[in-house]
Amino acid sequence: MISFKNDYSEGAHESILHALLDTNTEQMDGYGEDRLCIQATECLKDLFVNKSIDIHYFSGGTQTNLTAISAFLRPHEAVIAAETGHILVHETGAIEATGHKVIAVPTQTGKISAQQIEAVMIAHEDEHMVLPKLVYVSNSTETGTIYTRKELDQIKLMCTKYNLYLYMDGARLGSAMTAADNDVNFEELTTLFDAFYIGATKNGALLGEALVICRDELKHYFRYHIKQKGALLAKGRLLGIQFLTLFKDALYFDLARHANAMASQLTSGIKSCGYDFLISSTTNQIFPILPNHVIDVLTEDFDFYVWSTIDQENSAIRLVTSWATPQGSVDDFIHRLNHLSQR
Amino acid sequence: MISFKNDYSEGAHESILHALLDTNTEQMDGYGEDRLCIQATECLKDLFVNKSIDIHYFSGGTQTNLTAISAFLRPHEAVIAAETGHILVHETGAIEATGHKVIAVPTQTGKISAQQIEAVMIAHEDEHMVLPKLVYVSNSTETGTIYTRKELDQIKLMCTKYNLYLYMDGARLGSAMTAADNDVNFEELTTLFDAFYIGATKNGALLGEALVICRDELKHYFRYHIKQKGALLAKGRLLGIQFLTLFKDALYFDLARHANAMASQLTSGIKSCGYDFLISSTTNQIFPILPNHVIDVLTEDFDFYVWSTIDQENSAIRLVTSWATPQGSVDDFIHRLNHLSQR
Amino acid sequence: MISFKNDYSEGAHESILHALLDTNTEQMDGYGEDRLCIQATECLKDLFVNKSIDIHYFSGGTQTNLTAISAFLRPHEAVIAAETGHILVHETGAIEATGHKVIAVPTQTGKISAQQIEAVMIAHEDEHMVLPKLVYVSNSTETGTIYTRKELDQIKLMCTKYNLYLYMDGARLGSAMTAADNDVNFEELTTLFDAFYIGATKNGALLGEALVICRDELKHYFRYHIKQKGALLAKGRLLGIQFLTLFKDALYFDLARHANAMASQLTSGIKSCGYDFLISSTTNQIFPILPNHVIDVLTEDFDFYVWSTIDQENSAIRLVTSWATPQGSVDDFIHRLNHLSQR
Amino acid sequence: MISFKNDYSEGAHESILHALLDTNTEQMDGYGEDRLCIQATECLKDLFVNKSIDIHYFSGGTQTNLTAISAFLRPHEAVIAAETGHILVHETGAIEATGHKVIAVPTQTGKISAQQIEAVMIAHEDEHMVLPKLVYVSNSTETGTIYTRKELDQIKLMCTKYNLYLYMDGARLGSAMTAADNDVNFEELTTLFDAFYIGATKNGALLGEALVICRDELKHYFRYHIKQKGALLAKGRLLGIQFLTLFKDALYFDLARHANAMASQLTSGIKSCGYDFLISSTTNQIFPILPNHVIDVLTEDFDFYVWSTIDQENSAIRLVTSWATPQGSVDDFIHRLNHLSQR
Repeated sequence: MISFKNDYSEGAHESILHALLDTNTEQMDGYGEDRLCIQATECLKDLFVNKSIDIHYFSGGTQTNLTAISAFLRPHEAVIAAETGHILVHETGAIEATGHKVIAVPTQTGKISAQQIEAVMIAHEDEHMVLPKLVYVSNSTETGTIYTRKELDQIKLMCTKYNLYLYMDGARLGSAMTAADNDVNFEELTTLFDAFYIGATKNGALLGEALVICRDELKHYFRYHIKQKGALLAKGRLLGIQFLTLFKDALYFDLARHANAMASQLTSGIKSCGYDFLISSTTNQIFPILPNHVIDVLTEDFDFYVWSTIDQENSAIRLVTSWATPQGSVDDFIHRLNHLSQR
Repeated sequence: MISFKNDYSEGAHESILHALLDTNTEQMDGYGEDRLCIQATECLKDLFVNKSIDIHYFSGGTQTNLTAISAFLRPHEAVIAAETGHILVHETGAIEATGHKVIAVPTQTGKISAQQIEAVMIAHEDEHMVLPKLVYVSNSTETGTIYTRKELDQIKLMCTKYNLYLYMDGARLGSAMTAADNDVNFEELTTLFDAFYIGATKNGALLGEALVICRDELKHYFRYHIKQKGALLAKGRLLGIQFLTLFKDALYFDLARHANAMASQLTSGIKSCGYDFLISSTTNQIFPILPNHVIDVLTEDFDFYVWSTIDQENSAIRLVTSWATPQGSVDDFIHRLNHLSQR
Repeated sequence: MISFKNDYSEGAHESILHALLDTNTEQMDGYGEDRLCIQATECLKDLFVNKSIDIHYFSGGTQTNLTAISAFLRPHEAVIAAETGHILVHETGAIEATGHKVIAVPTQTGKISAQQIEAVMIAHEDEHMVLPKLVYVSNSTETGTIYTRKELDQIKLMCTKYNLYLYMDGARLGSAMTAADNDVNFEELTTLFDAFYIGATKNGALLGEALVICRDELKHYFRYHIKQKGALLAKGRLLGIQFLTLFKDALYFDLARHANAMASQLTSGIKSCGYDFLISSTTNQIFPILPNHVIDVLTEDFDFYVWSTIDQENSAIRLVTSWATPQGSVDDFIHRLNHLSQR
Repeated sequence: MISFKNDYSEGAHESILHALLDTNTEQMDGYGEDRLCIQATECLKDLFVNKSIDIHYFSGGTQTNLTAISAFLRPHEAVIAAETGHILVHETGAIEATGHKVIAVPTQTGKISAQQIEAVMIAHEDEHMVLPKLVYVSNSTETGTIYTRKELDQIKLMCTKYNLYLYMDGARLGSAMTAADNDVNFEELTTLFDAFYIGATKNGALLGEALVICRDELKHYFRYHIKQKGALLAKGRLLGIQFLTLFKDALYFDLARHANAMASQLTSGIKSCGYDFLISSTTNQIFPILPNHVIDVLTEDFDFYVWSTIDQENSAIRLVTSWATPQGSVDDFIHRLNHLSQR
């Protein structure tokens, strides 16, 4: 059985495991104050050409989102997010559990637009309603799409107009940054966003997300919030060494490029079999529409989610590739699909 | 520089790292539903000779405490804890952040007594005060002491009398269970406590605490709370493999025994130099009282916390040993202290 | 200036003020344990022919909703409500501030259907999403409509099927119960709902909502929650005396009937001028569609909200009548509108 | 039966009830934006000779405390309070329910000292502990004592040194301000405190506390918090008219003076019977120590709380007088005690 269910089915890139072995017996300070975290942070600051950012390491995306957002907002403030946003759908109300409403904006693409943000601001007029204060975007989105530089610039302008924080969930940031049609520069992220996180759990690490705080007013006392939310690892070195390994020689981008390439091959192969897609994606999540009887046979050998019903005879499925997807798995899938389609 | 600052200064026992390497490319389900977590849980259920318990894996102690306690309590309910309890002192108000008051009980030993619990219950008489509902004990405590079976039995009786949950923070449970004077059986824990956690971060793991829920009414929907608090690791296998490695051949207890033995040697050595202790401990945390000038010289070669001021010329320090403490480090310390004491 | 802005523009029915004067110097117990609260509760239990319900008095609707819902739910549980629901729109995220997500269901009528509830339950499939646990309905709704007995029976069935609590926001319950087309019996409410509140602030009281808890499991320790949320009035007698005055001789229903009658006269008058309505209402909130130039002139003498834009030349306005609306105010409005319409 | 149990046993000063009747049918805006609230606020600003303060009206003390403190603090920040503080003891964990720890400071007098505040600040050293940010004092305290101007000045200095907010719970502020030995000027309160509330529920109102916010940074968006916590009364006029009535001709101080005078007479009478007091109080709460057999007989005619056990034969009781305490009740009590003491 080959799994295309998600991008966290394997362990870590082996260079990470070797780095763990190499440093294992060295005694280090706890709670992210070790030399590995410090080096990882220096490395990222160099990449962003920005020494004034703060970087904090987390164990997962929900944890990062809830700690950051609850630290940034006052009790009466709310989040604006696309209705497909991970915090709205698949984090078990984690943001609301910290006291904040998340305002859903309808979307077909997984993206939110500057105009939609403005509409929300206009609709929230007085103290009988929450005050929207933070715009949450995912990049790549939960449906595999990416934001263009122009879209982000427009959103940024709107955030400035209404004094909103702009926050990016980068669980799949590597895939977004290395997508063929991406025009957003990694280095620009610290000027575009007030805060965002670089996801590594889905791109080569055992676990790990690096929250980058760019706006000064959001930096104060942040470590208190990490600790209070149970997110401050005693052995923070485990997170530091992974980000150091992933970024010191750009391994992070190589891994993401591989995942995208595997998805791209799947896309081409599926298209050449004559099938269409629910949504156009250049990242590591793709959503082909296949006949149900084809899907049934594919599930004998491949693991994936059936995403949505298209009509009585067809469904969209989700295929996710990762840094660890072997070329052979992609070839097998296309081969099998070719075979099924010719019958 | 040799560090006796804490028991999380090193990485993981090397058998854990090798297990990670061995299973690294195997595709597994996410979120703790992988075969490694399942095997670890079966292994622990066998050790407890109790198939009805639920086990959930976490990344750290604060995270475990806040997720469990907030899941167990209704909004008007509160926790009773010794004033030295980790949740009261060193978790940045994590329990209060989930909405629950923690009632502090004075202690000299780090332990709470059945009588103190009863006094709290009597003092909380009506709806103008919170309703105490959960008793939190640490074992070993934050000052290195352990509970006797008799003390726990008395506490358990009081909890039954007042319909209180009994919860144990086992961040250093290994050290407690293997202490020379411990008379509490590991197997009995699931009948003594309504819930408790087995700490591994401080006993050989990179990170990991296993929450054991024994009382049926506390089990329902618990995974929702793990997810909501940001504690559900995508690659839960990382936690499963560590507990499997630590418990399948009792490595967990061997490591704890080593830490205790190293502390015991330090204790003997320090006593033979003529020094007294702030508190009597048979676990891996000891609190010798030394002259300040001796402490000053020791800090040149050893790293540790100065715990409290005894008088103008003496202070108590905290020395913590771990599964990874080399015999040589202990020998060096005693040798150095001997030398300093003879001057 | 005559105000049709809302139903809380005046003080209280004068019989309430006289009752306050009559009992003013009598010393009574605090916190709702006075004889007036006790009598009011007995009176309501008699009306419901149900001795097993618990009744608690509050100062306002938002306070009642947030105290009840946060007391009823565990942290991972969520509320289902129509997108127009007061808790979703106009309570500044009060429910989310207690940690719970409110799931919005689209509606044209202000009402939610049993089918929509089932759709939400099916969509929430596992621990990565919140667990919907309480259905919130308003009756009358925020747009003046009322639920039929059949609709409520279907909702009740669905709640039973999915183990959901059924809760009614009765801020305008009087108006609903006395509407011409209402077929829900006041006495039946305690069997239809797990909990609901009887709003008096908008029907003759200075302030006051009576929460009725019908389901046994929701009753325990409820006074702790009232106190914790700051809702337990020292002089609870102020709430007791108002409910006693309103219900001992059915004044509550007389006042609501008056408000409905005034709204009904407005509706007839506006219709006879040839205007249509945004939504059909038989309660004390009506939503006529008028030409903007007519609205502009009306605002010289009458105060009301412009509710929504219909097209370039017409808007819907909201007119609200109350127990205190004088016949003359209604006559004046219709007279003025007649005059404007003939020009 | 005459009650000395508390100062909220009666209704309101009759001038308040008459003011309600006089304005009852006037249509006013809701939510505290009516002319009565505006006039009350102007009146208070004049009394404080301070136009820059913000004033908000609440229904009770717990509600005021929880709304203000949760609005002022970020999630990692905590409150410092005397262990006898109302928020620590008798508000059912209301502050913790909003996510904030309350740090208890031991006290014999109900008061907290500047030195104690400094000790707390020194003990809270890093992100593993909460950050103390607000000092809560009650004046008069829960045991009837009052702060001297010098004590408050020292506390203020310490708050400035450590960047702490200084907040006063003024549930019994009237009694404190009019106590014979008070040397704090009412007008000075807006410069001494960052925020405080003027309690009226216990001094002549049906219900009502006026929160005064003096520090600019605490003012922003405060009405959102009032609404979110369910504290924004639809008919805010009910609160405005009471504060207007109490302050426009200094009735508030007259009523408090009466309560103090009644308590003072009780104190003299009890002393002349040869009894001592648990604590020295010049406000409306006194704590005489009486033989248990005397207490038993007194309870036949008088209602009060037995406060604490002194020894096997004696207990301290609490007697509370109010604006409404008749001279006759005081005379009766002293007469009865005299009689009992002569036997």
